[in-house]
Amino acid sequence: MSKDTLFATNCKGMSHSAIGELLSATKTPGFISFAAGVPASEFFPVEELKLAAQKVFEEEGRDILQYGDQLGMLELRKHIAKRVDDKFSYKASPEDILITSGAQQGIDTVGRLFLEAGDSFIVEKPTYVDALNTLSFTGAKAKELEGDDEGISLSALEKELKENKKVKLIYVIPDFQNPTGKCWSLKRRQAFMELVSQYEVIVLEDNPYGELTYMDKTIPALKSLDAKEQVITLGSFSKILSPGLRVGWIASSPSYSGALSMVKERTDVHSSNLDQAIITTYLNEYSIEDHLVRMCKVYKERRDAMVRAVEKYMPTCQFTTPEGGLFLWLTLPAGMNVMEVFAKAIEEKVAFVPGTPFYVQQEDVAHLRMNFSGNTPAVIEEGIKKLGNIINNY
Amino acid sequence: MSKDTLFATNCKGMSHSAIGELLSATKTPGFISFAAGVPASEFFPVEELKLAAQKVFEEEGRDILQYGDQLGMLELRKHIAKRVDDKFSYKASPEDILITSGAQQGIDTVGRLFLEAGDSFIVEKPTYVDALNTLSFTGAKAKELEGDDEGISLSALEKELKENKKVKLIYVIPDFQNPTGKCWSLKRRQAFMELVSQYEVIVLEDNPYGELTYMDKTIPALKSLDAKEQVITLGSFSKILSPGLRVGWIASSPSYSGALSMVKERTDVHSSNLDQAIITTYLNEYSIEDHLVRMCKVYKERRDAMVRAVEKYMPTCQFTTPEGGLFLWLTLPAGMNVMEVFAKAIEEKVAFVPGTPFYVQQEDVAHLRMNFSGNTPAVIEEGIKKLGNIINNY
Repeated sequence: MSKDTLFATNCKGMSHSAIGELLSATKTPGFISFAAGVPASEFFPVEELKLAAQKVFEEEGRDILQYGDQLGMLELRKHIAKRVDDKFSYKASPEDILITSGAQQGIDTVGRLFLEAGDSFIVEKPTYVDALNTLSFTGAKAKELEGDDEGISLSALEKELKENKKVKLIYVIPDFQNPTGKCWSLKRRQAFMELVSQYEVIVLEDNPYGELTYMDKTIPALKSLDAKEQVITLGSFSKILSPGLRVGWIASSPSYSGALSMVKERTDVHSSNLDQAIITTYLNEYSIEDHLVRMCKVYKERRDAMVRAVEKYMPTCQFTTPEGGLFLWLTLPAGMNVMEVFAKAIEEKVAFVPGTPFYVQQEDVAHLRMNFSGNTPAVIEEGIKKLGNIINNY
Repeated sequence: MSKDTLFATNCKGMSHSAIGELLSATKTPGFISFAAGVPASEFFPVEELKLAAQKVFEEEGRDILQYGDQLGMLELRKHIAKRVDDKFSYKASPEDILITSGAQQGIDTVGRLFLEAGDSFIVEKPTYVDALNTLSFTGAKAKELEGDDEGISLSALEKELKENKKVKLIYVIPDFQNPTGKCWSLKRRQAFMELVSQYEVIVLEDNPYGELTYMDKTIPALKSLDAKEQVITLGSFSKILSPGLRVGWIASSPSYSGALSMVKERTDVHSSNLDQAIITTYLNEYSIEDHLVRMCKVYKERRDAMVRAVEKYMPTCQFTTPEGGLFLWLTLPAGMNVMEVFAKAIEEKVAFVPGTPFYVQQEDVAHLRMNFSGNTPAVIEEGIKKLGNIINNY
């Protein structure tokens, strides 16, 4: 039990969630977990990354073991600049790309630069729980806005921006959102940018899933539609290559890249040289595009397996089939409480994340976030069958 | 140029320092730099770390590429628990050790847990500039207290603690302080702990240099004298093994370890699995103690070379020979301005860090921080000779 007498105000309320405590049990053998947003570890290119590591040690060992560039390795930033242009049609100079320890650190770094107590920030309803926690950690207050299948509601957004002068930042995940799996249409992206360009507000575009697309295309990022240096976009190698190597990035613009790098320097000097160098060498020596084609095929099969199993065993639940990302977002039939389903599921050794913490008010009890990337189709069917039993016997 | 209209208050004043800008030029060939606190890269155990990396990929590749433990790898935390007990006589359970991305992240994490606008924190005068920046970044105000060769002044400390009820944290570097190189006596440590135990205040003990001792002994940490869970101690593999692998730690106690891990999780989930696994394997397979014996011999020779060169070429400067760490702290003769010496030195392609930013008020112009670990004795003599010319022709 923490002794919080001396804690900063924003830390006094902090506590490990009951959900988190229960989920920590799911790492024991025999558990089927649909909880964490994990890539399929059996497909990690272990051998290629091992060879890349060897090459790094042989060719630049002494350099990478010393302190490195605060922005991150230039060669890696050049790779990223090219890749985001190819995939998401946004331009960022390598000088405006800052390597972070995963995209989570990107959220934290951008949040610290812009937000403080007294500010507001807007999020989609529901949104990524750890963005909500991290951005709230600045003392700023979250305001959640509804959306539809095309993206965030622009009428709600316009109303909020007009009425709430404290809004400094809008946090969104336009590509295969966590937790809903939704992908904003290009039309909504354009209208969104047109609207926000009339306000002095930062758009924090989080895009860890954009390349995990099961519809054979990617959609231009909000940043590609940004005429006024309002959009800061996050990316990561965590979901497409490996989350254990902690490498993400912040793509900003000349107005903000210097300040972001100063925040990062105060945080932890720079991210792991070795992780960066291994990924750079991997990008030089192997085809990450081939790896992505393979992974998208695997994840699409797993998504389909989960969709089939839910239709078969949980026919009373509603969902929309996501066109990318890692999650299925299920709605329970009216009258059911997800926390009760969750407690039963843990007993039966199946795990998912209840939707509750993805909402600012945490009152929602109707949803389940189900990860489909981390288990084989057979295990997915087995787990969903168990969940179906729980729901059918509710 | 940053557009800071939307920045959080604490970020508005942020700017790259003029010193930093000039020092960034020192990476060009032909420069002799005594500026950065770098380990000697020619002695990095590159081959051993390469073999450790290979073993990691072969034996646990798939695991380390996946998300890892938020506290850091248990085996590494066990190693650290044993090492800090052996070296600095403090006990910390592996559950109370949190792996961070270098000790810098330790400063940031502890600062964020305890400090906010309206609070004060105490530092030694002078102190590590990036601790000052990072802790001030919370909005809390720094108060610097003089010391002597034995450590921080206890009369000044008692006065401050009595009079200033806003003090929540005391940041100190008792072992071979940055920038002064001073090492607190055991007697001062005991008296310090006796004094602070009468107040509700956190002691943040930063110890990146303690194992780089040139007097054949280490001194018990403040944490070893802590009866009331007041001391949180930071450590790091950066100076003793490699700073490019970003692995440090926070050793706290049951009252604070849970909250610290929650702050860390919000920041960047966890530190690089690969960096942690390589260091763990290195500790299992090789003798870091042998490496330390070798490095302390090398650094002692370099310190001696710098001391001799300063006595020969800069006889008007005063200094105390440090018994460990990486820095010599020089005092210019009265009437000289270090920023002018610095500007001349950069022209002559020799670099050091002026003492100015190590002070809260940044008014001091009398000191130079000179790193001796990063250059060979011959290069040290050459650089000091140039600096001597500048000072003698001032």
